[in-house]
This record gives sequence, C-alpha cells and structure tokens, in this order.
Amino acid sequence: RVTDAPISSVLPAFVVMKFDQEGNVTSFEKKKTELCQELSLQARDLRFQHSTSLTARNNCIILRMASLKAIVTPESLLVLDFRGLGLERWLVLELAPQLASQTHSLPFEFRALEAILQHKVNTLQTRLNEVEPIILDVLESLVDPKILSADRSKLHILLQNSKSLSELETDIKVFKESLLKILDEDEIIEELCLTKWTDPRVFEESSLGIDHAEEMELLLENYYMQAEELGNKARELKGLIDDSESVIFINLDSHRNVMMRLNLQLTMGSFSLTLFGLIGVAFGMNLTSCFEEDPRVFWLVTGFMFLGSGLIWRRLLSFLGRHLEPSMIPPVWKRSLKASDVKPGIR
Amino acid sequence: RVTDAPISSVLPAFVVMKFDQEGNVTSFEKKKTELCQELSLQARDLRFQHSTSLTARNNCIILRMASLKAIVTPESLLVLDFRGLGLERWLVLELAPQLASQTHSLPFEFRALEAILQHKVNTLQTRLNEVEPIILDVLESLVDPKILSADRSKLHILLQNSKSLSELETDIKVFKESLLKILDEDEIIEELCLTKWTDPRVFEESSLGIDHAEEMELLLENYYMQAEELGNKARELKGLIDDSESVIFINLDSHRNVMMRLNLQLTMGSFSLTLFGLIGVAFGMNLTSCFEEDPRVFWLVTGFMFLGSGLIWRRLLSFLGRHLEPSMIPPVWKRSLKASDVKPGIR
Amino acid sequence: RVTDAPISSVLPAFVVMKFDQEGNVTSFEKKKTELCQELSLQARDLRFQHSTSLTARNNCIILRMASLKAIVTPESLLVLDFRGLGLERWLVLELAPQLASQTHSLPFEFRALEAILQHKVNTLQTRLNEVEPIILDVLESLVDPKILSADRSKLHILLQNSKSLSELETDIKVFKESLLKILDEDEIIEELCLTKWTDPRVFEESSLGIDHAEEMELLLENYYMQAEELGNKARELKGLIDDSESVIFINLDSHRNVMMRLNLQLTMGSFSLTLFGLIGVAFGMNLTSCFEEDPRVFWLVTGFMFLGSGLIWRRLLSFLGRHLEPSMIPPVWKRSLKASDVKPGIR
Amino acid sequence: RVTDAPISSVLPAFVVMKFDQEGNVTSFEKKKTELCQELSLQARDLRFQHSTSLTARNNCIILRMASLKAIVTPESLLVLDFRGLGLERWLVLELAPQLASQTHSLPFEFRALEAILQHKVNTLQTRLNEVEPIILDVLESLVDPKILSADRSKLHILLQNSKSLSELETDIKVFKESLLKILDEDEIIEELCLTKWTDPRVFEESSLGIDHAEEMELLLENYYMQAEELGNKARELKGLIDDSESVIFINLDSHRNVMMRLNLQLTMGSFSLTLFGLIGVAFGMNLTSCFEEDPRVFWLVTGFMFLGSGLIWRRLLSFLGRHLEPSMIPPVWKRSLKASDVKPGIR
Amino acid sequence: RVTDAPISSVLPAFVVMKFDQEGNVTSFEKKKTELCQELSLQARDLRFQHSTSLTARNNCIILRMASLKAIVTPESLLVLDFRGLGLERWLVLELAPQLASQTHSLPFEFRALEAILQHKVNTLQTRLNEVEPIILDVLESLVDPKILSADRSKLHILLQNSKSLSELETDIKVFKESLLKILDEDEIIEELCLTKWTDPRVFEESSLGIDHAEEMELLLENYYMQAEELGNKARELKGLIDDSESVIFINLDSHRNVMMRLNLQLTMGSFSLTLFGLIGVAFGMNLTSCFEEDPRVFWLVTGFMFLGSGLIWRRLLSFLGRHLEPSMIPPVWKRSLKASDVKPGIR
Repeated sequence: RVTDAPISSVLPAFVVMKFDQEGNVTSFEKKKTELCQELSLQARDLRFQHSTSLTARNNCIILRMASLKAIVTPESLLVLDFRGLGLERWLVLELAPQLASQTHSLPFEFRALEAILQHKVNTLQTRLNEVEPIILDVLESLVDPKILSADRSKLHILLQNSKSLSELETDIKVFKESLLKILDEDEIIEELCLTKWTDPRVFEESSLGIDHAEEMELLLENYYMQAEELGNKARELKGLIDDSESVIFINLDSHRNVMMRLNLQLTMGSFSLTLFGLIGVAFGMNLTSCFEEDPRVFWLVTGFMFLGSGLIWRRLLSFLGRHLEPSMIPPVWKRSLKASDVKPGIR
Repeated sequence: RVTDAPISSVLPAFVVMKFDQEGNVTSFEKKKTELCQELSLQARDLRFQHSTSLTARNNCIILRMASLKAIVTPESLLVLDFRGLGLERWLVLELAPQLASQTHSLPFEFRALEAILQHKVNTLQTRLNEVEPIILDVLESLVDPKILSADRSKLHILLQNSKSLSELETDIKVFKESLLKILDEDEIIEELCLTKWTDPRVFEESSLGIDHAEEMELLLENYYMQAEELGNKARELKGLIDDSESVIFINLDSHRNVMMRLNLQLTMGSFSLTLFGLIGVAFGMNLTSCFEEDPRVFWLVTGFMFLGSGLIWRRLLSFLGRHLEPSMIPPVWKRSLKASDVKPGIR
Repeated sequence: RVTDAPISSVLPAFVVMKFDQEGNVTSFEKKKTELCQELSLQARDLRFQHSTSLTARNNCIILRMASLKAIVTPESLLVLDFRGLGLERWLVLELAPQLASQTHSLPFEFRALEAILQHKVNTLQTRLNEVEPIILDVLESLVDPKILSADRSKLHILLQNSKSLSELETDIKVFKESLLKILDEDEIIEELCLTKWTDPRVFEESSLGIDHAEEMELLLENYYMQAEELGNKARELKGLIDDSESVIFINLDSHRNVMMRLNLQLTMGSFSLTLFGLIGVAFGMNLTSCFEEDPRVFWLVTGFMFLGSGLIWRRLLSFLGRHLEPSMIPPVWKRSLKASDVKPGIR
Repeated sequence: RVTDAPISSVLPAFVVMKFDQEGNVTSFEKKKTELCQELSLQARDLRFQHSTSLTARNNCIILRMASLKAIVTPESLLVLDFRGLGLERWLVLELAPQLASQTHSLPFEFRALEAILQHKVNTLQTRLNEVEPIILDVLESLVDPKILSADRSKLHILLQNSKSLSELETDIKVFKESLLKILDEDEIIEELCLTKWTDPRVFEESSLGIDHAEEMELLLENYYMQAEELGNKARELKGLIDDSESVIFINLDSHRNVMMRLNLQLTMGSFSLTLFGLIGVAFGMNLTSCFEEDPRVFWLVTGFMFLGSGLIWRRLLSFLGRHLEPSMIPPVWKRSLKASDVKPGIR
Repeated sequence: RVTDAPISSVLPAFVVMKFDQEGNVTSFEKKKTELCQELSLQARDLRFQHSTSLTARNNCIILRMASLKAIVTPESLLVLDFRGLGLERWLVLELAPQLASQTHSLPFEFRALEAILQHKVNTLQTRLNEVEPIILDVLESLVDPKILSADRSKLHILLQNSKSLSELETDIKVFKESLLKILDEDEIIEELCLTKWTDPRVFEESSLGIDHAEEMELLLENYYMQAEELGNKARELKGLIDDSESVIFINLDSHRNVMMRLNLQLTMGSFSLTLFGLIGVAFGMNLTSCFEEDPRVFWLVTGFMFLGSGLIWRRLLSFLGRHLEPSMIPPVWKRSLKASDVKPGIR
C-alpha cells in the first residue's frame, strides 16, 4: 500500500501473455486488481518502478528487465504489457519452445527464470557487439598516422557510440547489482525456489537429492559471471578509447611540429632572400651609384645576392638543427629495468 | 546536551506548520523548549546540524532534507521554519491533500515519510532535469565540427552547469548514504515504525498480517534505488562531458592542422615567388647586364620567373605530401579482433 | 615499553596547562616520567607519534590533533607542549570558559572532548575557507574568455592553493579515519566514557537515564559528519579546478585557432600580392618589353596586378571557407535524448 | 541440468588426456555423457562457460584456465579438448614428469592443482614479460627530447601493447577473483582436499599431523599473491605510460614554442626589411625625386635601409624578450617544503 | 612440501647471522635442511617467495622485507643471506646494540620485530626523502612562467623520479597490506607472541599484567599508521605532479598564444606594406605613366605608400583587438558563492 497515492495515473489493466508448463500460450487482457487477487499479490508489487528488479512475493517471482515485465508462478509465466516493445518475436519463437522443452528435470520456475536472464544477458551482449566493432573501426581510422586532421564525422560516430557504451556499462552494473543483492542473502534464494514451497511432492519426487536453493544459486551466479565478463569487456573498450585519444593527440601534435619545422625552414629561406633582395632593390633605385656602366658589377651583385642568401639560409638551417637537438641525455629506465629483472623461471 | 555551549545564537522559537491525520493544517509559533517538552525530546535533537539527516528519537522521526526540517509523530507532521524557502506552495497544495488521503492502509508516519522522501527525490530529479538539457545542448553545439573555435559563452554555461552537476552528485550521494545507514541497521528501521510502539491496537487491527518494519524497509529501499538511478544518470552525464571535451580538443587540433597545412602550402608558394622574383629584382637594378636591348630576353626571363616558381612550388608541395604520408603501417587491432571473436549464440 | 629504544632523544619534560572542572587554569612544567606515574600511564602512551590520534588508556583519553596534544582525565584536561604553536589565545580565551560552563549536564570528559574536536573541525573549516575564495577568484579570472593568455602569477597562486587543498583533503581524511576507527568498535566508545567507570555515583545521579556511551557515539558521529561535509566540499573544489582547466585549454585553443585563421587569411592576401607583384617586378626589369611607350599599358598592367591579386585572394578565402565547413552531420544525441525522456511526474 | 536447453550445439565428446599418479599418460576420446556417469558428475558441470573457473563437485576439482580445461580426481588428472591450443608441449614435457615426481608428501590433487596454477601464473608472467620490454623501449624512444615529432609506427606499437596490457590486467583480475572467492569460504577449501574425503587411510598415514585444508589454503594464497604482484607490475606499467605521455606532450609543446619563437624572430626581421625596403621601392619608381644625380644619396639611402631595418629588428627582438619574461614571481613551495620538513630520524 | 618440485635450483645453504638475547652476534653457514630440522620448520616455510611477508610458523616468526630475510625465535634472531645487499652496516652497527638493549621489559621477539619493522619504515621514508626534494625542485623550475619551453633534461629527471615514486607507492601498499592481513586476524597476532607459548614462566613473571597480544597489536598498528602517513605523502606528491603538469601546459599554451598574437600583428604589418608596396612596384615598371616628370608625384606616391600601409595596419590591429575581445559575459560562480556562503562561526 505504500506509495499508492502519488501514482493515480497507472493503467488499471495489463495485456498478459501466459505460458504454462505444457507449452500453451494464451494472450488476454486483465485488470490489475483482478491479477493481484488471483495471485494474492498487493497492488504495489506490480508497480515495476525500477528498470531492473527481481523479487519473490507470496510464491511468485516478480521481475522486470528493462522493457520486459514478468511474473513467474510455479505453473506459469505471465509476461505483462509486452506489446510494441519488439519482444513479440522472441516471446513466440524462442521463449515458448524453450519453456515447453522437457529436458529440464528442474521445476518450471527455473526454466522461466533462466530463459529471461539469458534473454537479458543476450540483449546486453548484442548491444556490446553492436557498439564494439564500430568503435574499433572508428579508432582504427582515427589513430591512422597518415591523417593530418581527424575526420569529424568519425568523431561524431565515436562520441555517439561512446555514449551508448556508458549507458551499457550502467545497465550491466545495475543488472549485476540486482543479482548480487540476491546472491548475498540466502533467504531470498530460498524464496525464489517456488516449487519447493508449493508442491513438496513434486519436489521430493523429482529432486534426486538436488538442493533447489543450491541450483538457484548456481543459476544466478552463472548469469552474474556472464554480466561480469561483459562489464570487463566494456571497461577494456573504454580504456582503449582513452589510450587511442592520447595517440591521436600525439599524432596531431607531431604533424603540427613537422609542418612547423618546414614552415620555419621556409621562413628562414624567405628571410635570407628578402635580406639580400634588399641589395637588388637598392641598386634598382633611380639614384646614381657610379657602378651603372660597369657590366661586371651586374653579375657580381646578382651573384652576391643569390649566393649570400643561400649561405645565410644554410647557416640558419644548421642553427635550427643545433637548436632542436640538445646534448645527449642518459636513458630513463634502461638501467632500472635490469635491476628489477624478472625471472619467471624461478617462480 | 552535548554541543550545547558553542551554539548560543540559535533562535529559541520555531515557526511550525502542523498537519494532522484528518488533513487539518494549522500554523503557529512555538518556543524551542516548549516543543521539546511537548514531544519529550532534548534540545540537541532539534539542532538540525547536517544538511541531510533522518533519525528516530523517542517515538518521533526527526528529519531534515536541505531546507525542509520536519518532525513526524504518530498523529501529526510538524514542518519547522518553513518560511521564505519556496516550500509553502508544496506544503499547502501537495503535502496537505497527500497526507489526508485515506487510500493508505498503513499508519500516518508512513504517509508523512513517503511524502517527504518523494519530495526530496523529486527535487533532485528536477535539478537533474534542469541541468541535463542545458549541458546536452551546449555540448551538442561545442562538438559541432564546423566551428573553428569554441563559443566562449557556451563554455561559461557548461562550466556553471558542470558545477551544479557536481553539487547535485554530492547531494545525491549524501542522501543515499543517509538512507543506507538506516537500511544497514534493522533496529533503526524498527524505531521508525512509530505506530507499532505507540498504538498496538491500531497496529493489530489494521495490519492484515503486514509487518510494519518490512514495509518501512521497502519504502526506504524504493527511494534509495530512485536516488541510485539519479546518481547513475549524473555519472553518465559527467562522463559525456569528459568524452565531449576530448572530441572538442581533437576538433580544434584538426582545424589547426588543416589551416597549418594550407598556410605551409602558401608559404611554399611565397617562397618560390620570392626566390624567382629575385631574378627580376636583379634585372631591375640600374646596372648594365648587356641584355637590355634584346626584346626576347624580357619574355625569356619573365617566363623563367613564373614557370620556375611554379615548378619549385609544385616540387615543394609534393615533398610536403610525401613528408606527411609515411609508409604503410599494419592496422592495430583488426587481427586481434578476430581472435577474441565473441559468439553470443553459444552462451 | 614497545618502541622505547630507538627514541632516546625525546624531551623528558612537558610544559603542561591544566584546566579543571571549576574553570581554574594552571600552567607548569613536569617530567614525563612523573606525569606517567601520576596518571598510571606508560611512557609509550605519551609518545604522540601520529599527527592525529585519539585513544583511551587507563581512564585517560590521550589525543593529538596536529599541534594540540592533550590528556583528558575525569577531573581535568592537560594540554601538553602548547607553547609557540599559536594555541595560547584559543586555550585561554575560548577553551577555559567553555570548559567552565555549567550548561552541560554531561561529565567533564564530554565537555573537554567536544571542545577539542570542535576546535579541530573549526581549524579544518578555516583552512578550507582560506583556500576556497582564492581558488574561486583565480579560476574566475583564468576562465575569463577575454584573456588570450593565462596570467602566470595567477597560475602560481592556483598551484599553491591547489597544494594546500590536497594537504587539507589528506588531513580531513586522516581525521575522519581516526574517528571512524572508534565508531566501528563499541568497546573503545565505552572506554572513552571515563566518568562511567571512575565515579559510578556521579554517573547514576546525573544521568537521568541517558546512556553515556550513546551520547559519546552521537558526539563523535556529529564531528565525523562535519568532517565528511568538509571533505565533500574539498572534493567539489578539486573537481571545479579540473573542469576549469579544461575550459581554460579550450579557450586558449580557440583563441589560437581564431588567430590562425586570421593569419592564414593574411598569408593568402600576401601570396596573391606577391604573385601579381611579380608582374610588376618583371616589367621593372631593365629589359625591353616593347610596351614601354604605350601609356595605356601602364594602367592596364597596374590594374591587372591589383584586380588579379584581389580576385585570387577572394578565391582563396572562399576556398578556405569551404575547406573548414564540412557537409552537414546529424546531431549526436538530440534523438537519443527523446528516447530516454525522463518523466519526473510519474515517479 | 540448468541451462541445458539453450545449448544444443555442444560437442557430445571430449578428447581427453589422462595423467595418473604413477606418471602414465593416456589419450583417448570419450562421450560427454559417459564421462559424467563415470565421475558421477552432471552434464552442466562440464559446461566450462567461464574463461576462468575452479570448483569442487562430487570429489572432483573441475577447473578451466583460459584454454586449459581439466578435471582432477583423487587418482588422476584429465585434461579435456587440449588439441590445437599450443598446450601439447607443456602437457607432455612438463606436466607429466611434474605429476609423477614423488617428492611431494601431499596427495595427488595438490600436485595437479599446483602444476596447473603454476602454469597459469607462468602464462600471465610470460605475457607481461613480452609486453613490458616493448613498452619500455617504445616509451624510451618516444620521450627522447631530441625528437621533434613522435614516430608514428612507435605509437602504433605502443597502442597495440597498451591494449594487450589492459587485457592482461583483466585476466589477472579475473584469476585473482576466482582464487579469492575460494579463499573467502572455508568449506570450498575443504571440498578441494579430495583425498581427505575419499581415502581416510591414506590421509591418516601420510599426513604427519599436517592439516590438508591449511595446506590447500597456503597453496592457493601463494598463487594469489603471485598474481597480486603481477597485477601491481601491470598497474605500474600503465602509470608509466600515462606519465610518459604527459612528458611527450610537454616535449612536443616545448619544441613548438621554441620553433615559434624562432619563426617570430624571423618574421620580425622580414617585417623590418620589408618596411625599409619600401624606401628602396619608392626610389625605384620611375618618378622624379630630384636626388637622381647626387651620388651620395644612393649610399645614404642604402645605408639607411639596412641600418634602419637592423635597428628596428633589434628593438622588436628586445621587445619580444621583455614580453616573454615577466617580473619575478616568488617560488611556489620552497617555503612550504621547509615547514613540512620531514625528520626520519625521530620516527 | 607444497610447491617443492618446480624449484630445484634453490640454494641448499643459507649464510646466517645470529643475534641472541645477550647481544652476541655470530655468523655461519648452514644447510637449509639442517636449519629446518633445528627449528622444526618445513622446507617450504623458508622459500621466501614474496617480496614482503610476515608469518608465524611453529613458534618462529618468518619474515621477509625486500632483501632482508629473517627468522625470529623466542631466544634469537637469524638473518639469512644478508651478504652483498648493503645490509651489513645496519646489522652490525644498529641492529645488534638495539637487540641487546635491556630497556625493553617485553620479550625478545618484540624487540626483534620492532627493529626490523622500524628498519623497513625507515627504508621507505628514506626513499621518499630522496625522491621528494628532487621532484619539488624539478617542478619548481618547470612551472616557472618565465620559461618558454620545458627543459628536457628536467623532464627526464621528473619521469625517472615519478617512476621511483610509483614503485615506492606499490611497496608501501604491499607493506601495509601485509600488516593489515595480520591485524585483521586475532589468532595470527596471538601466534606472533612467541614467548607467551614457549615460556609461560617468563611470561607471568615479566608481564606486569600486560597482555602480550595487545602489545603486539599496538606495535603492528604503529607501523601500519607510519606506512599510512608515508602513503598519504606519496599520494600528495603524485597529485602535485599532475597539478603542475596542467600548469606547465597552460604556461606553454599561453606563451604560444602571446607569440602568435605578436606574429599576427607583424603579419598584418607585412601585409599592409606589401599591399602598398605594390604601388611602388607599379610605378617602378618600365612603362609610361605620364607622371614621370612631375617631381610632386614622387613625394605624393611615396607618402601615400607609407601612410596608407600605416593606416591599414592600424585598422587591422584594431580589428584584431575587437575580434579577440568578446562582449561582457557574467561571472561564473560569484553569485553562487554567496548562496552557499559558509558560516564557520555557527558550527
């Protein structure tokens, strides 16, 4: 009854798809209150406020995984409000046969829970698989040392996928936490084993000495570890983006430096030419220099202009070379590497 | 009594707004000491030193959520010092009807606590909703690859909102911690169920077998998870800002490199022109070169100047092209991608 | 006795200021060994090795908060080696009256402990208050988009205060940890309630049913939370410095890009002028071009030079414009924003 | 039986290599179902879903370390699906003699487990040893202050190895977590001591008072700490990459600044020459300046041009010098260093 | 016996230095197996596989602190393989007298353990003291705003010391963890009190009511906190390096922007001169302009050239000024500062 008041706009009816143990699938509409009475649940139990939740209430497992809202009872699985979410295909083509398969010796709630958690993990994996190759492709082309400037459309794609990756990381984290909360408390695991409490006869008959609670723990732990692996992959991808960005920056900076040196060398050349060109300009003035009539002076001055600027340029270039190349500096960690020499053979 | 001495400047009176179970709202002023005596509290319990606190003392829940200071008793909710904080509207228009609503089968303190926590979460959500679209808008326009330089007024807005986001993150963290401290200790949860201890008759009558402490835990956990979701959203937003800043830097650097190459190409052109222009300057000198009278020489030299500078420029440009385009380098992770090829179908 | 040997250079005498319950203050010198005997402590208990410590030994609370070393007994507070540390003013003007105040119904050790912890928190707060406005001021002037280059003296101030902030953060962390260590162990809290163990009569008389250990826990928790708030503020400030640095870099880069574009545009102009100026240089040569006598040719060539360079410049500028403005790219998260549209009303 | 249904494509047979206590090695193929029956395991126990796992089931230790899948029974070690993974050499040449060695007084499962864990740690160590010298070499050459621009092929190698390092870090983390999970639960350690439960006689005879569970804990802890050391090394290497990248950026920026200053100085020179060259150009015009006939004017103007541009250049250079060299600023932490002077002797 | 097999290359003999309670020091060589028998230890106990370990085995404390390997028995301290590690000086000059000192009322193992842990902490402190002033010096000179480009040899020194600092941080962390592991388990602390178990008579006589285990806990905690302080200092130093690097980058960027503006201003001047110089070039052509004979035209055109280029330059400069100075923008957090005004007096 808690938090009833503020939510008066909740739809009073659910569209329900029901899967029973024999594989029959029926679809119908049901008022929320009727559903509650039928399953002896309270209204607030069907609020589905959080994007990821998994709880046991009164011999039902109520769970929500993003858009998928479901109730598991010992005999049937009810999927609520499934329309328009792209779930229909999976529900009809995959979930139904999976639930009907008789290879499971464990009760129905295990089959249902497993199918739904597997679906969740697959969804997360699919999202990672969509994002990963795009990011790798974009980074591959961005760290390409040949490119002088980053392709901006590629950066856009990177930013978009980097955002998707962050959201995926959050979803994996939330999923892991919701499983971990259950794994940390043995009573909740016990509660999740519905058949153990409702049908002791079935339990004793089929169990073959298997402890339902232990099986449930294994099942949940399995999906926890799968989510953990996905999380590790996502984290590595994030790290790769960071590392690549550093390399992109170094690449761009290197290009800039190379261009700058070329530019500087040319500026040196232009400076030399301007300096010695000034002589030519001087002799071009309509002023009397007394050399006007000597034909050798022309060649002398012209030669001096070209040779002089050439020499000055060469001196400037060698000055630049010396300026950028400092005296030898001892290496940083060559020495220390030897000291901490690791000997794997001894361990 | 602890920490009484250093705080002698505390106002001895509170302005109180009282909400009772029937929905009556009264507002009055009361001395702090009288209020303490009435509720059998000690002076220090009403100190409200920390910006966020939630404690149970002597069958009262004393809480503060930023500017909202309140005492919950089994029969009434007292809001203290509510004036001038923008709370009046919410108190009168929303809180009063919410507390008077009879849809709740749980006692008054649940309704009061829920209303206040919901108000707090709504406040946090509102702050996030204010900051988020502004940040997304600013980032959207800053990562725009067309812009050559970041709009500085946009940066100002980003910095302001980034600061607000940090403060919001701290507030969410503090709120979560104050709830977590209670959720971690079962006795405090028990103490928060006021009616259970004051009015056992009501408790037994209305409970229908519902355990008040469990309900309280669900209520607090619900708001904890809502705060957690807000925290995740804020964290993602922070990450987006970081990622966008990297992209902005790459964009700006790329623009710079492109402009630099253009500049370098023009410098090359200018250099070629200057070099061959020197010939013209030489022939412009008032010196005798012996070619003065031959009309073909004019066209020869002029042609040489233009063609020569054109050719030198072309050679420099092709040199630049080769300089910036190193030999082929094998791709970084194309190969490794295949090795770690993920097969979602098998899992 | 542990760790006695290596420390033989410890001064064998303390300068002690003693505050008793009646507000009397006496100051004297005492040998370390005598003090130990008097209080039945061991020599090593008065080593004060760590900058922040708070322990209970043999019905004394021995604490050190940076330069303040003190021993609290049930009847008196001894402050050791207080000289030359800027503590005298506080000791005489604030601590003495505070300890003598009779408003406290709790025993003397509470008053003493509270005064010292409050002093510590005030010191930390004062340091934050000193650093915060300076940092905000410096950042405010550094992120100013009008400035082309960061003021280097401002950077120096920022670096100095950023260092102080780091040290403050460490001190807050150490203070918090020393309190947390006590709060985590109930026995230590019990030991801190000196009067409870020494004078059971006083305890029973004055207690009014208040549990001393619980009061002590509240007292310590209060200062823990105040330190936590200081820590949060310091962390936010650190984050603000980081965010501002990013903005400073974007600002500087933007300025650079703007200047670069201007430079490039001028280089384009210079190039055009040089190119067409070459025609003028050609005609300036002392060579026969056969146009010498036609007065129209002068205006024709001059016009061609100016118009030609103008036209080429214009083409180069429009080329630059097109080069820097790539084709439209779809926005990054406008779309995704709508998908994750948050509806605060429903929650 | 859990999770049977979705995995219908699992191969129904294993290629098994069997090592028994006497050092005999046999290799055969076996159906999965037969193997399960023989060892009284369930089908799902041999799923090997996670890349790293170590569990005890029904007196068998089932483990997977990346490509190595194995089952340890009290009498033998079964390695499954070993082909084509580069494991054969190790299996035949190292594992077989190691298992046959009689120096161990502890039962077979200890020998087997130790050999496999040692192999895993060696593999991790080998991967680190491969990556570390390459990264150190690349960084060594990249932080070389002589280079003007980073070698792009080196950056590629750095990025590739940085990626390998991240993957290695994840693998070390996963390995550590799988060991830690066991070390945290005493029952699992007990279960791992197979001989203790199967052959009490052997146990009592050979034990010499040694507790098998304690030995197992020591064994696992040993490998946990070796993995911890590897993790520390990997983390340090990551930190070194980050630090080096900062240094590379500062180096590239410094080069750029040096080149920029040179460029600016030359631009100043060119500007001066252009400015005074304008005088020469003016006198070169075919216009009457009345100085045409005075031979001294030529030398006067020419001298003015060269001297003037030289003087202007010198003034510009000294202006630049003053511009870049601001007034003295006090050092940042020389003073604070003295205050926090550390005295190691006293501690 | 565990892990015996793979390590066959271990030296079968130790060089041992023995310190007994009376201060006698003897040095001898002993086979590993003999030593084990003598102390009733197992071979694997003397493996010393991890760089830092501290364990109690069969009434001996076996510890390794980097190069120092030692065994503490209730009567003597054995230091193993001490040669060639720079330990001899400390062993003979400091450790021997320290162990012989009779000021300790606690048993021998306390004295030995304390001396070794103190040595370890001193070593760590010394390493920090070596690295800290160098780093502070280098940073001090690198953040100097006067320098245009970072001194590359300084960067090398920074990188080397930054690496040493990382290694020191790892060593401190490992040392802290090895102490924490013991402090977390009371049984291990009990085991470390050797005399308590071997010689109950001595224990009862000398104890004076002091609990050995509590003394041991205090001793270990003391060194833990010293290591914690070292760790805090190292972390602060790391943070200072990061902050300084940001300041270095801002400095270098600022210099660049200043130089760029100067360059741009000169480019503007050159452009103006080139533009108006074109007029001079035009008039310098050997073409008839009809102004040849008018002496005023020379001065008119010359004046126009100089004035015109001066005016254009001025306009360009003022355009640049306006371009870089945008309209007023409101300050970022001046306002928000007031809102969150902190009042330390009230707290």
